Amino acid sequence: MSSLSIAMAQINPLVGDIPGNAERILEQARRAEAQGADVIVFPELTLSGYPPEDLLLRPSLALRIDRALDQLKQADLGIVLVLGYPKVVAGRVFNMAGVVARGQLVCEYAKQCLPNYQVFDEVRYFVPGDSACVFDLKGVPTALTICEDIWQPGPVEQARDAGAKLMLNLNASPFHKGKPREREQLLAERARQGHMPIVYVNQVGGQDELVFDGGSVAVNAQGDLCRRLPAWQESLELLQANWHDGSVHMAHQALAPQQQDLDSVYQALVTGTRDYVNKNGFKGVVLGLSGGIDSALTLAIAVDALGPERVTAIMMPFRYTSELSQTDAAEQARRMGVRYHSLSIEPMYEAFMATLDPVFEGAKRDTTEENLQARCRGVLLMAWSNKRGDLVLTTGNKSELAVGYSTLYGDMAGGFDALKDVPKTLVFELSRHRNEQGEVIPPSVITRPPSAELAPDQKDEDSLPPYEVLDQILALYVEQDCSAEAIIARGFAREDVERVVRLVDINEYKRRQAPIGVRITQRGFGRDRRYPITSGWKLGE
Amino acid sequence: MSSLSIAMAQINPLVGDIPGNAERILEQARRAEAQGADVIVFPELTLSGYPPEDLLLRPSLALRIDRALDQLKQADLGIVLVLGYPKVVAGRVFNMAGVVARGQLVCEYAKQCLPNYQVFDEVRYFVPGDSACVFDLKGVPTALTICEDIWQPGPVEQARDAGAKLMLNLNASPFHKGKPREREQLLAERARQGHMPIVYVNQVGGQDELVFDGGSVAVNAQGDLCRRLPAWQESLELLQANWHDGSVHMAHQALAPQQQDLDSVYQALVTGTRDYVNKNGFKGVVLGLSGGIDSALTLAIAVDALGPERVTAIMMPFRYTSELSQTDAAEQARRMGVRYHSLSIEPMYEAFMATLDPVFEGAKRDTTEENLQARCRGVLLMAWSNKRGDLVLTTGNKSELAVGYSTLYGDMAGGFDALKDVPKTLVFELSRHRNEQGEVIPPSVITRPPSAELAPDQKDEDSLPPYEVLDQILALYVEQDCSAEAIIARGFAREDVERVVRLVDINEYKRRQAPIGVRITQRGFGRDRRYPITSGWKLGE
Repeated sequence: MSSLSIAMAQINPLVGDIPGNAERILEQARRAEAQGADVIVFPELTLSGYPPEDLLLRPSLALRIDRALDQLKQADLGIVLVLGYPKVVAGRVFNMAGVVARGQLVCEYAKQCLPNYQVFDEVRYFVPGDSACVFDLKGVPTALTICEDIWQPGPVEQARDAGAKLMLNLNASPFHKGKPREREQLLAERARQGHMPIVYVNQVGGQDELVFDGGSVAVNAQGDLCRRLPAWQESLELLQANWHDGSVHMAHQALAPQQQDLDSVYQALVTGTRDYVNKNGFKGVVLGLSGGIDSALTLAIAVDALGPERVTAIMMPFRYTSELSQTDAAEQARRMGVRYHSLSIEPMYEAFMATLDPVFEGAKRDTTEENLQARCRGVLLMAWSNKRGDLVLTTGNKSELAVGYSTLYGDMAGGFDALKDVPKTLVFELSRHRNEQGEVIPPSVITRPPSAELAPDQKDEDSLPPYEVLDQILALYVEQDCSAEAIIARGFAREDVERVVRLVDINEYKRRQAPIGVRITQRGFGRDRRYPITSGWKLGE
Repeated sequence: MSSLSIAMAQINPLVGDIPGNAERILEQARRAEAQGADVIVFPELTLSGYPPEDLLLRPSLALRIDRALDQLKQADLGIVLVLGYPKVVAGRVFNMAGVVARGQLVCEYAKQCLPNYQVFDEVRYFVPGDSACVFDLKGVPTALTICEDIWQPGPVEQARDAGAKLMLNLNASPFHKGKPREREQLLAERARQGHMPIVYVNQVGGQDELVFDGGSVAVNAQGDLCRRLPAWQESLELLQANWHDGSVHMAHQALAPQQQDLDSVYQALVTGTRDYVNKNGFKGVVLGLSGGIDSALTLAIAVDALGPERVTAIMMPFRYTSELSQTDAAEQARRMGVRYHSLSIEPMYEAFMATLDPVFEGAKRDTTEENLQARCRGVLLMAWSNKRGDLVLTTGNKSELAVGYSTLYGDMAGGFDALKDVPKTLVFELSRHRNEQGEVIPPSVITRPPSAELAPDQKDEDSLPPYEVLDQILALYVEQDCSAEAIIARGFAREDVERVVRLVDINEYKRRQAPIGVRITQRGFGRDRRYPITSGWKLGE
């Protein structure tokens, strides 16, 4: 019997920063070596970060990767490195995992299953591998796989047939609500199928619209969960295994708690926001605080992500802004300790209308005047951003982005939208959930009926179905691809369904210019959903 | 010997409008039948239009396609139809071409080469076919291929080996500068390789960022060009062939002229703009006319696309706007016969600054004040658009979009950007070219040094290298993926190259929120170029 100590390195790489990621790898490897680990396993495409997108097409990619690999080989480590990188071979690029031991690249595995659906474009860049890679790890025949490989039955069976007794699986597996559970069930099944333990290492952190929860785990050959790293943080932990009688044995070890859905979604929003702001070098953020629930939740997320000193909230009242909105906004800013200004938009609105009145030639009021209010606010926030270097956070939720209940260059003006993939009903749940950890959002923000306050006594439900209904229709149409007729057949009112579906269809142009935001479902309004703007697709079956 | 009359149907389908496209097909088929054609050949994915993007994932796709095919089969036509459609078989989707004859679907061919590079995502949707399809067309063994199939050597050889003597090739082949020539050279080579004539039918028109020039052609087995349809218009023309001694013979017939590059690029911009406006149902367009060359050329394109009565130009002067700009703008509007307004942005600018001054706390002037001017203009144009139903055309060119020399929610506010893929130096060429057909742009607009007029006596070249230099660096970095060091090695100044490359890299966030616009190169700033916003990729090799 011999023992094997495997370091699971759940790190947060920066996409494109190949030298920086090599440094991160070395630092973790030295820590793990000092702790007595035999091998350290990193996430998929560790050196480039994930997803590198069209950086993979740059001709100097191969050179940069080679340099970083040379640096790792020459680092004189006593620990075996298992890491990922894009590898160019005769003009073809592979999504590779490699093993560096005693200064040598001892074997390489090319990812076989290349996802090209949802947010994934791997066939755009990579050529698939076709064979298992089994190497000797302190006497244990050990196989490598990469992310999607484990979601298909083939590669594990192939590794088993090639004699592997342990699987190291490198991941860059984006979060969506419920995914941590799905993933653990799948791994248990694959381990039993392959008769070998699987060590699953995932990256953590935000990269544009994607967030990675980490949630790295190890399961033994019986499919029992033996180790779970904490979600949403960088983590380096050692996993102990024993090799005897031709099998790798692994006992139950420390398990970080599995999060509840609301916890993990809230953490996803905080992580995505924090990493977007920090990785892009912004000093802080600014947002319009309206007294409504979307901006209230966004403010809470921003403060939890960055701390109050990096957050500015600006209330921009107009004649339709209620007294309650102004009190609630000021109160939340006070509770959260952020910089707060109140700037009326009356003078700019009046200046625009005075100029426009003659060319509008007495045309009657419509949404033009409502959009104008939103745009005066957008211009103010952008001026603050330009002068102070703060990123503007927008506060639109998924429901309103779906039906176009928002103003381009108005409340949609900004660089990042934490709630972009959060339906309004979930905005309410998350707000209550956040308040359970400390009441930062004044309760009246949560209990009053939602209003854009762009016209006298306006309520969202004057022009939209109640959010409980709207969000169900949207989930069926957008996330599950049901047709209008199929949704009506489930009992929703024809009038509501036809109106909502039509609004979703005609507002593609708005979404195309929306800021990016955190993806928390399997169908976000980002790289996930690629619809034509110009489209003759009509209602119906 | 027998004769064969082939109708080439270069049509302009509407993406997603399956019933409407079926009607278009029937109408053309009846016209061709009346003219005595034996067969009519349509473009790729005729029924869905191209590219249908994620409409291909909707579960009712199969039903809608089946209905349309049934309608075509039951139409009692005496002509053979060759058309394209997405076909769902046991949950897998094929990019199919089918032959309808005497009310029956007599054979089907599944596209084998699925492009998944540049703007193409076909692997996201389709499963490739693996075999030739040869059918009897009035005694002639005839093969089908689809678009990319002809760009690879395999499918033509496979069809030849399967006994085909004629190739019908269905296309949705997007335009880029120089492509019509490339395509004809390629077809000549393939025809010789397959020892058979190729009838190449392409669609025409604009679909979001893509434009299709048509340019349908026929080449005989010797690779001689026998027929060319006119570019940039719908066209139905008959091609005459003879079948004897086991070969299809085709003589030289009418050839529409091959266009010069400047002509075809200008037509691309006009076509893309016209189809975006019309297919999306806008009444007309509005644009900010500054007296500069970008808006001048955009106005000319808009008028050529839509006619003067559907175009409104608004000059929005400020204290830095020169007298010459105002005269030139008014003069061009007069020459082109469009609606024209002049609306000063002084009052709104002053209202914003009066509100912002206290919170800016004496911070010194910077680009904030310049952006504010641009944003006052953007808000005015959007208010016009909201009130009148006109689409706002933006006027940014590729050079400024590349380096971020533009204001988000300011001059970038709008729905469509005709010049999005046109470098500034080409803007000059196209303006002179357009003036050669009638001087609509006042000459001083073309000859004076470009200025954004956002500060006193500002010139573009105060903050950017001369456009002749800038555009060369951009072409090397963006279109040819050269590294900074490789560009410097070609003799450009290190300082210029490093500044430009860095500007391109850090302005990805702006481009992500830019309106779509016409693609005329093989690397537009749209679906062609998918870069992360958050990126640690640095200058260097």
